[in-house]
Amino acid sequence: MNRKDLFGLIKQRKSFLCVGLDPDPKRIPEHLGTGPAAVYRFNQTIIDATRDLCVAYKPNTAFYEAMGEEGWQVLRATLEYIGDDHLKIADAKRGDIGNTSRMYASTFFENLSADAVTVAPYMGEDSVKPFLDFEGKWVILLALTSNQGSNDFQFTAQEDGQALYAKVMQRAQTWASPDELMFVCGATHPEKFRELRQLAPDSFFLVPGIGAQGGDLEAVARHGMNDHCGLLVNSSRGIIYAGSDEEFGTAAREAAAKLQRQMVSALATYLP
Amino acid sequence: MNRKDLFGLIKQRKSFLCVGLDPDPKRIPEHLGTGPAAVYRFNQTIIDATRDLCVAYKPNTAFYEAMGEEGWQVLRATLEYIGDDHLKIADAKRGDIGNTSRMYASTFFENLSADAVTVAPYMGEDSVKPFLDFEGKWVILLALTSNQGSNDFQFTAQEDGQALYAKVMQRAQTWASPDELMFVCGATHPEKFRELRQLAPDSFFLVPGIGAQGGDLEAVARHGMNDHCGLLVNSSRGIIYAGSDEEFGTAAREAAAKLQRQMVSALATYLP
Repeated sequence: MNRKDLFGLIKQRKSFLCVGLDPDPKRIPEHLGTGPAAVYRFNQTIIDATRDLCVAYKPNTAFYEAMGEEGWQVLRATLEYIGDDHLKIADAKRGDIGNTSRMYASTFFENLSADAVTVAPYMGEDSVKPFLDFEGKWVILLALTSNQGSNDFQFTAQEDGQALYAKVMQRAQTWASPDELMFVCGATHPEKFRELRQLAPDSFFLVPGIGAQGGDLEAVARHGMNDHCGLLVNSSRGIIYAGSDEEFGTAAREAAAKLQRQMVSALATYLP
Repeated sequence: MNRKDLFGLIKQRKSFLCVGLDPDPKRIPEHLGTGPAAVYRFNQTIIDATRDLCVAYKPNTAFYEAMGEEGWQVLRATLEYIGDDHLKIADAKRGDIGNTSRMYASTFFENLSADAVTVAPYMGEDSVKPFLDFEGKWVILLALTSNQGSNDFQFTAQEDGQALYAKVMQRAQTWASPDELMFVCGATHPEKFRELRQLAPDSFFLVPGIGAQGGDLEAVARHGMNDHCGLLVNSSRGIIYAGSDEEFGTAAREAAAKLQRQMVSALATYLP
């Protein structure tokens, strides 16, 4: 899925919502049973309930790996169940020396059917580049993350005053175009979105931190939207755990719809 | 395995060698066949050939994930095959927001039988801490990596002149003691080991970059050894692909023995 296709989906669905599929086995509604099969049924229900309201799904690999071999099967089946009308993001935060990153890229892009993988920048260019060698696939590089710990190293200021996250964004844009590279920019730093957008005017940002983490969708859209939207706002726990009983699909749909209505308004207001 | 036990093994085997188990299916000797079962036989042969020469094994998860569900089984079986007389390091380079890092930690420490996991520092304290909540287990945090891309961000100098890798090492030592925290310090920066050792006098360093990547074992030992050795020097490709035919186990043993002989000498010379 290229940048134009993604923007087409956003206009069609009036949504730039990404639904995070992070199924904690302890929080799966009881009536679904337990184990990997229950998690897959949970994901199917969430996907069916939200398909028309979002443009992307983002399973976080941690939640699948925690189930061992069978979890890997659930991840594969979930990506296949999503199909081709959504951007499929493997939230893996990988990154290693070149020959190893190449193996990870092959796993997510070839063995599984992900369109995009989140990648950690700490190890630099040769740890990121192997992910960029796959035609039509995306790297989503961590820049300014949504968690408290983002304050530990990402704001490290250089002698010229530039922060590490800014250096990551500038440097990475010399490696790849906005047609294959996005950045993770957390909604918990809404005051930073004007600067983040200046740093990468044409790039899509994957924006976690709305909902359970407390970020502000309106502020992100006001400062962060560009002429092809340029935002994928993620909610995981706020949607998938909106309900905890047999009606959890309906509750998830309502939570997603609430965000999508805010996005209708944000697109009408801020899309040039 | 605690720090004292690890030093005990090092003295007993006169070795601080870690063997990296990164089996690329394309480089498995032909006579072993193909597929995950062949990879497991490959690993078994390497382990049998090197047990008495090393104190740690380090499977890199990328090579197992690339084989999908069956790869995960091979990783599990390999860790079990290693047993309890070596430090078992899952080289995973994970790191995510708190609830997610917790899932990864559970995967490697509970679902699998790893003693240690490599973790990326970019997301800061709350991405690392969940790995530290497991009694008797280790976090090995990326500090100064061995690859070319380590020059992109890890040397980012703050206004006070301190580089990012140094900040990572100093900050992380406020989160955990040298009994549960090691650092990845690449052998491709031998000139840095005096400074690295000053930054973390009591910590073990996991040192990649010997062999295929060109690092210098003697320089690392000269500047990096402390009173309980404090070094685990890793070789992956230099050992496991030393041979490519039916005698690959013998070739791997010879390559490991060559490094171990250098370690006998380094321990005699530099261990206080």
